[in-house]
Parts: sequence; structure tokens; C-alpha cells
Amino acid sequence: MFKPVGVAAVGLGRWANVLADAYTRSDKVSLVTCYTRSAEKRAAFAQRYGCDQEESLESLLKRDDVEMVIVTVPNRAHADVIEQAARAGKHVFVEKPIAVSLDHAQRIVNVVRETGIRFMCGHSGRRLGGVVKMKQMIDSGEIGDVSMVEAVFANERGLELQPGNWRGDPKEAPGGVLTQLGVHQIDNVQYLLGPIQRVFNFGKPIHTRIQNHTLNQTVVEFADGRQAYIGTNWVSPGVFYINVYGTKAALFYNLDFSWWSKSAITDQHSRLRKREFASMSDDPDNRILREVDVEFPHTDHLKDQIDMLAEAVRTGAEVDLTAEAALRNLAVVLAAVRSAEERRVVEIDEIIG
Amino acid sequence: MFKPVGVAAVGLGRWANVLADAYTRSDKVSLVTCYTRSAEKRAAFAQRYGCDQEESLESLLKRDDVEMVIVTVPNRAHADVIEQAARAGKHVFVEKPIAVSLDHAQRIVNVVRETGIRFMCGHSGRRLGGVVKMKQMIDSGEIGDVSMVEAVFANERGLELQPGNWRGDPKEAPGGVLTQLGVHQIDNVQYLLGPIQRVFNFGKPIHTRIQNHTLNQTVVEFADGRQAYIGTNWVSPGVFYINVYGTKAALFYNLDFSWWSKSAITDQHSRLRKREFASMSDDPDNRILREVDVEFPHTDHLKDQIDMLAEAVRTGAEVDLTAEAALRNLAVVLAAVRSAEERRVVEIDEIIG
Repeated sequence: MFKPVGVAAVGLGRWANVLADAYTRSDKVSLVTCYTRSAEKRAAFAQRYGCDQEESLESLLKRDDVEMVIVTVPNRAHADVIEQAARAGKHVFVEKPIAVSLDHAQRIVNVVRETGIRFMCGHSGRRLGGVVKMKQMIDSGEIGDVSMVEAVFANERGLELQPGNWRGDPKEAPGGVLTQLGVHQIDNVQYLLGPIQRVFNFGKPIHTRIQNHTLNQTVVEFADGRQAYIGTNWVSPGVFYINVYGTKAALFYNLDFSWWSKSAITDQHSRLRKREFASMSDDPDNRILREVDVEFPHTDHLKDQIDMLAEAVRTGAEVDLTAEAALRNLAVVLAAVRSAEERRVVEIDEIIG
Repeated sequence: MFKPVGVAAVGLGRWANVLADAYTRSDKVSLVTCYTRSAEKRAAFAQRYGCDQEESLESLLKRDDVEMVIVTVPNRAHADVIEQAARAGKHVFVEKPIAVSLDHAQRIVNVVRETGIRFMCGHSGRRLGGVVKMKQMIDSGEIGDVSMVEAVFANERGLELQPGNWRGDPKEAPGGVLTQLGVHQIDNVQYLLGPIQRVFNFGKPIHTRIQNHTLNQTVVEFADGRQAYIGTNWVSPGVFYINVYGTKAALFYNLDFSWWSKSAITDQHSRLRKREFASMSDDPDNRILREVDVEFPHTDHLKDQIDMLAEAVRTGAEVDLTAEAALRNLAVVLAAVRSAEERRVVEIDEIIG
């Protein structure tokens, strides 16, 4: 029998609610209490999810029935909150990105190592059923030798952002859309193909009122010579796709981004297709391609990540998304931002070396 | 009444036949004669298409009933043949790329200017019905302000090429797949958004026996700050797509490459879809996207390009694909190759300046 892990929500903005909608459906965690500075927001959250509320982070961390903290405070506050939680012996889930500066990310990596807590960063894209299936198809050799990947995440947010919004501040959201959306695809391509070694990026503000990137087109190389393109765009209707090019087949994963935050049904609005040869001939003008749907088990990307962390808490199992991996995702963001500024290839080792 | 333009085929390899299959369906041109060095190939072509044959290029160019020459000789011979044809007063269609060195391309541009002949390079991708439609939708403002384009062309050819094949020689095919497939997409993105200003490219041989690029991922900037990604891959089943990101809608064009050389039906195997908002809300979690098919008149990309040139010959109308534009397509290829070698941004002006 699995005893549910007692969790507390710290930071109670929009995303805290989206996540709670997901993990309160789980039988692996039990929401105990919550905290944010605004008494009004605390009361609303506690009432909505039927949990306690605390008047300070300190009192929350003192509760023995809180085993794990779900952190959705602003990015710049991640390190402080996580250090406090970890030193109080609490396991930590933090929404992506792990942080927006490398110093903060390194502090988080360090405190996770020192304290031995279980930790996960919310790169939930790799939990999507189609992405999990692609990973299996790459690793099994079923699609042959992979040479390149393309991963794009776009939405319209940059058309609406007003000057003064923190998302428009390059310190709070390096690369703008690259931090806010792109880091999901950066995690996905590193999940699929391994650590990115170097980056080139063209990026800029375009069609927007903010002074932060609403457009990035990033190309990356892996140590083994494989490559990927990561496109991020904040001035277009939503697009989320991943293409994988193997010598035997190409895979095309497509997700209707409208359903991203309704994670129980996100997968229903996604599709994975495989393109391969229906007939092969010595004459290249007489080869016929076909495209077939690939079935995959549906997941619940926002819930499953919390479940995985809860299982790690109970069993001591490894989490497949370490603090170091989340730091490397941030490093790729920062390398891409530097690349766009300096118009040159940036090695990830320059950033984290 | 349109008097068909008398044409002669020079170079009678596989592609000469594919093109002749297309333009012999046209009532705007009439195939008069042909030439290649191999008497056997000449005879076969003359018999297949019911035309005369010549024992030399000189005798072919002396015929008054030959008004236009269709050049499909090897890339390195384009400039010599075109100079001879132009100086004999013949109009010229040449298969892409215009040449594989800038010197040769410049000689062609010069002789076209000097002689005032009508000229077209066979970047037939921009004749595809879906590509024409996308251009109209961009120019009309129907999809809002465009920020980025993605264009990919892949096929499996690099898996089969043996050492010694000219396509494996970086001098004969700079960037390998970039010259052979990519130049179509380079032309398409310049057709859609205007002249490319600068280029960065990661590219290399991968999963192949040849010492030439089978993989390139190229990002480019236009003068107005818009950007594009051009992916070329020679080690995957066929892929041909173009995505256009506008502030009101995104467009996705997809072509089943199997049907590329059967140009009367190529468009039947293509699809253009538009993604836009079905419902808009102030709450970004409550906006629903929809995707609809966009209808477009079907074209015959290999035939239509010859027809357009024939009309220019009869009416003096401008051709929409000048020798200078074809040279700029080559310049982008050469800039991308240099970028991959030197791992830096290359300005197109460095190449053609």
C-alpha cells in the first residue's frame, strides 16, 4: 500500500491552481496546507482545495505532515524557498525553469546534494504520452539512426504583454519566450538525444511592446554530431511540435497547445505520426512514402511528474530529471541568449564550466 | 493566338526526361531538337519525344526554329552552355542551381544582361500551388504580421550515395544536400519573405559513406529582422514542409515528396492548413485553436515554369525569378557552407559583395 505523501503548496498564483487541479487527482500525494504572502489568496486556495493555510513559510516547514513542497513562487525566489525547504528536510517540486540565473540554479543543485532530498523540476513536456513514445522509438532503434530533431513551441502571449510585465524583463525571463516556452523543448530534445554541447541563436523582440525576445531560432549540436533546431515564437497562434528524423522513419508529434493546462486530456489533443517507405525501388522516382498514426498510452503530464516524485520519496528511486539536468536546461537558455547578443556559437561549457 | 516557342533540350540525363514529360504537355512550347554528347542518349530522347537530334551544340544553336534552350547539363557546365546559347540569341531555362561557383553564376548573370535574353532558373518549388497560395496570404495581410518561417526538405539519397558520386564532392555540390535539395527551400523563403541578409549553419556528413553534408540546420535573418530556419537532411524518408508564423494565423504546408517529379499531380499530394483561434478569451487557458484546410488552385510546377518563360519570350514580360535571384540562392548556399566551416555568422554581402 502506498501512503500518500503530504504536500504543501508554496506560491499560489495561477500555475499553483493548475498544478493542484492535477495532483489533487492523485492518490500518491495528499495536499496538507499552503502558503503565500497574500492572506486573501491563501484563503481562496485553502477553501478551493480543502487544505490548511499557514501564515509563514517557516510555520509551514515546521509541520511534520508536510513531506514535500510544491514551489511556484516567482523564478527569482526559487533558490531561497528551496534552500529553506530542503534544509527543513522537505522534498521539493519546483515549476520550470529551475531558476533564471546560474548562481541560483547552482545553489539549488548544491542544496539538493547536501541534504539528499528528492527533487524535480516541472519540465512536464517529457511526460506527454507522445514524447515518451518517441523516446522509446529512438532508443529501440525502430526508426533507425537519428540525425536531427526539430522542436517548436509558440503562442500568442507576446502580442499582449505590456511594458512592466516581468516576462518582458530579460533578467526575469532570459530570452523571453525562450525561458517561458522554449525551456520545455530544450528539456525535450535533451531527454530525447542527450546533453546539448553548443548553441547558435538568432533572437529578438518582434511584433511586441516588450523589450525581450518574442522570437528565437536556435540550432544546437550534441557531442555525437547530431543536431536539433528549437524554435520559440510568442507572436503566433499556439504551435507545439517535435519532429525526429531517423534513417528508417521520421516521426511527427503535434500537440494542440489549447489543452496544455488540462493535463488529464492533453494527450487526447496530440498526435504522433510515423513516415516511412510503403514501397522501395532502385529508381528514386518510384518510391512511395506512407504516414501512419502511432498509438501511445495516454499520460497526465502535470499529475504524473508529481506522482513520480512521490514514488521517489517513498521508495528512494531515482528521479529521471535531476537538478543538474534542469540546470543544464537553463544553461542552454543562457547560452542561446548570449549567442544572439554576441552573434557567435556558445559552448554550454562556457556557461557552466 | 500563342505561337508555341521552339525549344531544344541540351543535356539528356534523367532530369531532362522528367522536364520533357512536363513541357511536352504544354501548348506554349514545341520541342524541336536535342543534344548531348552520347549518340545513344540522343537517339533515345529524340525517339521518345518525337524531336530531331543534333551532333553538336553549335549546330543546335544555329537552327532558327530553336528559340529557347532547356539546359540540364552538369552544374559545372551551366555557364559555358548558357554563354554559348545566349550569344546565339537563344533564351535559356536552366535547372537549379544556377551554378555551383559564384564566378560561374556571375558569368550567367552577365551574359543574360548583355544579350537581353529571357532567362529562368528551375526553382520550381515556388510554382507549387500551396506555395503560391502562402505567398498571397502573406502579402494580403490575411495572416497578420509574419515573424518566422520554417522550411525543410529531406530525403534518403545520402544513405545510398557511394564514394565517387559527384553529389558527394563538395565542389560539385557545396553543402551536399544543401545544394541538391536545400536550394529549393532557400528560393522559397526568399520568394516568401525577400532577400536573406545573413546565415548561420550547423552541417556535416552523418550516417553516410560520402564526405559531404547530409545534414544542415540553417538559420537566417532578413533585413527587416524576420527570420527563417531551413533544414536539409539526406538520411531520412522524404519530408517537405513550410511553416509560416503570422500574428493572426500560422500556415503549415506539407508535400509528399514521392510525387515531386510527376508535376501534373504533385499538388494532389500536398496540403495547406491554417491554424487560428476558434475562440479568444482574456484568460489564456481558455482560448481554443482550430486548424482548417486552405484550398488553392492546383498547378503543374515543372510545366508552369517553362510556360512562364515562354510567355516572357513572346510578350517581353518580366520573369519573377531573375538570374540575380538565382545567384542569390547560390550565395545563401555558399554562405551556409562557409558558416559551417568557420562556425560563425556569414553575411550574404561577404559572398556577393
